[in-house]
Amino acid sequence: MIGHLAVVGATGAVGREVCTILGERGIRVDRLSLLASSRSAGTQISVNGHALTVRELSDHSFEGVDFAIFSAGAERSRHFAPIATQAGSVVIDNSSAFRMDPGTPLVVPEINPDDAFQHRGTIANPNCSTIIMVLAVWPLHRVNPVRRIVVSTYQAASGAGAAAMEELRTQTADHLAGRKIVPRVFPHPVAFNLFSHNTPIGPDGYNTEERKMIDETRKIFHEPSLPLTATCVRVAVMRAHSESINLTFERPMSPMEARSILCTAPGVEVVDDVAGGRFPMPIEASGRDSVLVGRIRQDASQPDGRGIDLFVAGDQLRKGAALNAIQILELLTRDPTNHPRNRPR
Amino acid sequence: MIGHLAVVGATGAVGREVCTILGERGIRVDRLSLLASSRSAGTQISVNGHALTVRELSDHSFEGVDFAIFSAGAERSRHFAPIATQAGSVVIDNSSAFRMDPGTPLVVPEINPDDAFQHRGTIANPNCSTIIMVLAVWPLHRVNPVRRIVVSTYQAASGAGAAAMEELRTQTADHLAGRKIVPRVFPHPVAFNLFSHNTPIGPDGYNTEERKMIDETRKIFHEPSLPLTATCVRVAVMRAHSESINLTFERPMSPMEARSILCTAPGVEVVDDVAGGRFPMPIEASGRDSVLVGRIRQDASQPDGRGIDLFVAGDQLRKGAALNAIQILELLTRDPTNHPRNRPR
Repeated sequence: MIGHLAVVGATGAVGREVCTILGERGIRVDRLSLLASSRSAGTQISVNGHALTVRELSDHSFEGVDFAIFSAGAERSRHFAPIATQAGSVVIDNSSAFRMDPGTPLVVPEINPDDAFQHRGTIANPNCSTIIMVLAVWPLHRVNPVRRIVVSTYQAASGAGAAAMEELRTQTADHLAGRKIVPRVFPHPVAFNLFSHNTPIGPDGYNTEERKMIDETRKIFHEPSLPLTATCVRVAVMRAHSESINLTFERPMSPMEARSILCTAPGVEVVDDVAGGRFPMPIEASGRDSVLVGRIRQDASQPDGRGIDLFVAGDQLRKGAALNAIQILELLTRDPTNHPRNRPR
Repeated sequence: MIGHLAVVGATGAVGREVCTILGERGIRVDRLSLLASSRSAGTQISVNGHALTVRELSDHSFEGVDFAIFSAGAERSRHFAPIATQAGSVVIDNSSAFRMDPGTPLVVPEINPDDAFQHRGTIANPNCSTIIMVLAVWPLHRVNPVRRIVVSTYQAASGAGAAAMEELRTQTADHLAGRKIVPRVFPHPVAFNLFSHNTPIGPDGYNTEERKMIDETRKIFHEPSLPLTATCVRVAVMRAHSESINLTFERPMSPMEARSILCTAPGVEVVDDVAGGRFPMPIEASGRDSVLVGRIRQDASQPDGRGIDLFVAGDQLRKGAALNAIQILELLTRDPTNHPRNRPR
């Protein structure tokens, strides 16, 4: 039993998914506060069959709140998460605000659950593309250390929120009807198009999304210098991210060994049916908890047998965001001594 | 002046593009025969303002034909190309039928023009994904040999022909209208989705498209064991392919050097505006002759400075198929001694 849970950003794409998953997993709370900006206050959201009214997020929202799941962007997290932790809440933050803060654990429960318990009030949920990749790579890395990762992403509109998903829908309809397309949420047309992820590009040439994949993977794996390069691309897909992943291992790894490891890995489902031509696809990953992994094959460019290629697809809103945050909540509340009320302050 | 030119598969997506480009480039021919299956015979196609009637392709279509551009699939090429060359035509074949035949040159005019003149009647046009990649990689490879390529593709519907482009359009409209989607051309839904390229998968785990990229690049570069791995993916884009390319060079290569080489490379246009957020996109590559190259950056996973990441987009129907074939035709006819009628038999 969780005491008082607050969902910050409850009307956003991730916040709504948090509400859905709370119901699906039968998570019992004494009290549930749905919070959002003044613009969305008053919205009704159904959680487990009960209609709840979204209230306006303020500096006073966290009195008596035990746990708060934040999905309202980095700026709001930077302002409100310290207020929440000050009020005694444990914050699980979906934004990028604290992910690389050395004092904030960055947690994927299947990979580094112990890190969650080192928190000082805030636990960060990794970037969606990172979570989806590391779910597939970690089980292999545990058996045979990964020495290099080259990843290219195929990211859904959902990563930019509900308005972006709506833009993909309306813009596509406009394009089909021959109407002029006016991008509003994205800087470029997304209908029947794709583009390099539109986050700022740093002096090293990587955009912020790619930099997150590099830095966050290193932190989650506790491998501060793991060689990794990423190319992040937005595609005309609604809500699941796909990734083409090329791995170099310390020792040779056969596709059969990789497949057998992945078949029993938590949070992963191997979809690699060569005879039937069935491999991970975003429409099949959508709404699923598992990250789908397939096209498992020996990399022909590494003749020493140390290379493996994979293709994965995972629901960006679920495992890429809301589900991972709820799994962190479950992890923390499994052990009652870790309840905020029972922790030494 | 070219004597008698035949376009085989004139009503297909690539064949129509061949007709368009002939007009655009003002290529003068004594006679132009448009050929297709009996199903398409009778179709009128406009070439340079003249409406021409498509005739049925038969074993007798090649009498007096000097050059024939084939874009009618591997099966028809296997049957009709030998008939055409027997009749004295020089065949430029867009299919995969002869690409890996040791006696057939595989030509990208910007890269290996000399190979074209070694033909024994047939010259093969490479696979579209291969052409688009090698245009960007070759100029760098000439300066500093490429030692490994890791490529992931984002391939348009056009690669599967005109019917596939129509399927993307109608399926997307059906999806938006909430109608049931029934894939016909592709084995999987393509609207708001993507999937692993649906060519057969060999015992090595690579599908045929990926295997083409590996083998054809090696042949074009005259580097029979160039280390290369490819992951080929179909996306909901109409007609330009994009590719995320990771390169390892023999010696260090800086992004500035790579950019300066690519800025003067033939067939390439650098679109890499970090301040303006403008990079290669399929909608901007569509209808263009150049392959757009951007996101040129040092690969952080290769600390010795030998790695470069690129993102490219090129029109699959133009440089990926029709334009390259016409450039081969131009190459062969530039030197009148190479005209079929003047060649020793």
